[in-house]
Amino acid sequence: MNTETVWKASRKLSDGREIVYFDESPDSGRAVVVDARGLPEPAFAPPEIRTDPFTGEDVVIAAQRQGRTYHPSADECPLDPSTPGRATEIPASSYDVVVFENRFPSLRNPHGRCEVMCFTSVHDSSFASLTPQRVRTVMAAWIDRTVTLGKLPAVQQVYCFENRGEEIGVTLHHPHGQIYAFPFVTPRTRQMIAQARRIDDAVKRELDEDLRIVARNEHWVAFVPYAARWPFEIRLFPLPRVPQLPALSLAQQEAFGPVYLKVLRGLDRLFGVPMPYIAAWHQAPGRDKTAREVFAAHLQVFSVRRTADKLKYLAGTESGMGVWINDIVPEEAARRLREAI
Amino acid sequence: MNTETVWKASRKLSDGREIVYFDESPDSGRAVVVDARGLPEPAFAPPEIRTDPFTGEDVVIAAQRQGRTYHPSADECPLDPSTPGRATEIPASSYDVVVFENRFPSLRNPHGRCEVMCFTSVHDSSFASLTPQRVRTVMAAWIDRTVTLGKLPAVQQVYCFENRGEEIGVTLHHPHGQIYAFPFVTPRTRQMIAQARRIDDAVKRELDEDLRIVARNEHWVAFVPYAARWPFEIRLFPLPRVPQLPALSLAQQEAFGPVYLKVLRGLDRLFGVPMPYIAAWHQAPGRDKTAREVFAAHLQVFSVRRTADKLKYLAGTESGMGVWINDIVPEEAARRLREAI
Repeated sequence: MNTETVWKASRKLSDGREIVYFDESPDSGRAVVVDARGLPEPAFAPPEIRTDPFTGEDVVIAAQRQGRTYHPSADECPLDPSTPGRATEIPASSYDVVVFENRFPSLRNPHGRCEVMCFTSVHDSSFASLTPQRVRTVMAAWIDRTVTLGKLPAVQQVYCFENRGEEIGVTLHHPHGQIYAFPFVTPRTRQMIAQARRIDDAVKRELDEDLRIVARNEHWVAFVPYAARWPFEIRLFPLPRVPQLPALSLAQQEAFGPVYLKVLRGLDRLFGVPMPYIAAWHQAPGRDKTAREVFAAHLQVFSVRRTADKLKYLAGTESGMGVWINDIVPEEAARRLREAI
Repeated sequence: MNTETVWKASRKLSDGREIVYFDESPDSGRAVVVDARGLPEPAFAPPEIRTDPFTGEDVVIAAQRQGRTYHPSADECPLDPSTPGRATEIPASSYDVVVFENRFPSLRNPHGRCEVMCFTSVHDSSFASLTPQRVRTVMAAWIDRTVTLGKLPAVQQVYCFENRGEEIGVTLHHPHGQIYAFPFVTPRTRQMIAQARRIDDAVKRELDEDLRIVARNEHWVAFVPYAARWPFEIRLFPLPRVPQLPALSLAQQEAFGPVYLKVLRGLDRLFGVPMPYIAAWHQAPGRDKTAREVFAAHLQVFSVRRTADKLKYLAGTESGMGVWINDIVPEEAARRLREAI
């Protein structure tokens, strides 16, 4: 860990999956608690990676996930801590931040790994409601997973992200994110490696022009990008750039929460309803030396909501041709976000 | 036109947009009917094309479309023929197939053009309910638009497609498709030009292996692709390949409907409810000589429905990293589709 303010401990769940606690105080004893469910080891066939001849890109075929948990009621949430009467995915009776291997993974050995990260034990909460200290702990967990999973032999790239909102298909409402450790470099990351110099130029232009910046502090800048694809899209860059989360300075790690929380709370205020969003950490694939030199790690946050009662759908132009059509001019989106912040 | 079985005539709507009738019998007189609505010429600013530094891809910023027609009631459908009491987008009192410039276009001069194509004047119908003769007329209209719009100075690529179903954001239920005449070659098409040889190999493999073919006749084959991204995805190729729809032989044009209608009716039968889908015609950009030699034009049809009550959403992996995760093994999807057909 990059910091002494987070304590990490891990153990195995009853079916052999790993669980890792990231505690904000020492000696919690959480990792001692046994998973008493006696789950069988998963019997399903591992997912398959197929290369699509139409695009040259890899596609994951993950048949067994059709049986995964789908909109459980609040009192059946598998991401709550366990109680005497109810054993969940987390054996301990409390936690700060916890990460465990997904029970219904899209990627499994030898093809990588999928993990779930719970940001808080409070079921009816959200990332936007976290304290800056908790965001700091989440950041420590993201960094730890990037380092730890990046060392697994099959893994080419570690991807930390959050899906939030039923509008984008989220079936568990408990505040959580995911980590995908991919056995290949993803199509978007390949593009961004090829575009690295243009991305540097774009960030410089955003800072110089100051047309679309929505929040910033000494170590981070958040802006609506010049060619935003989504009605509300924000990119958060650390200053100066780093290739991966583990390369963030302690000051950058510390300063992320205050800026990101402003952005998320602004998004929720835009339409007076919780904003569905995807938050995606872009970072360099660990084994690519060139990428580790040129890549600018950053968080992309975007929403499919375009008005209080309308969503953006991906239809023929986006899904068929890869052409995004954005109904909201980026400068206007930035203006509205600044007002909401 | 490639055929004498369709009669084409055009005129201007009251705001200057073009409307083109494709009649299945001569002397309909439809194009003589005047648009009496006296619509003002559109006042909004033209859309803007911005190149995304993060991907190198073009994004369309089309602000004025926020005001477009959204879920009108059936008796206000703008795609019905006009009646004495109600003037619609189509001045004539009947039509077979009709094409007109979109009133709320994502692309306008000098950046291309957007058109709407109505497949039938019957509001409560669907493409799957068309007769083979009508599909033949639709094909003639697609070919005509490919040729006609492809000649406009700004246009690099003509894209014919249909979005069907509220689940993917369709706001007009009248059976219709769209034509986008792009001022650039789209990202997906660029990929497919680069992959042209692999696509040829893939089609050959599908024909040889016969694992995923769902329908075929002498001139067309329909299969679930090896690395399908969507729960139900089908590609329909003419045999032998052609680069663009206008290069289809008359026999191929004629033979398309019977195979495609089988596929669409199979999709609707899969879950016993009308299947939401996107149908996307991939064809070579007209001004690209290499593409005109190597490209294999085909129709891609895919659905976001994965079970009777579940949809596939594009979330963090797809929208963030460009990695598709498909819950249904393509061979299994093909088997279920064959049964439904």
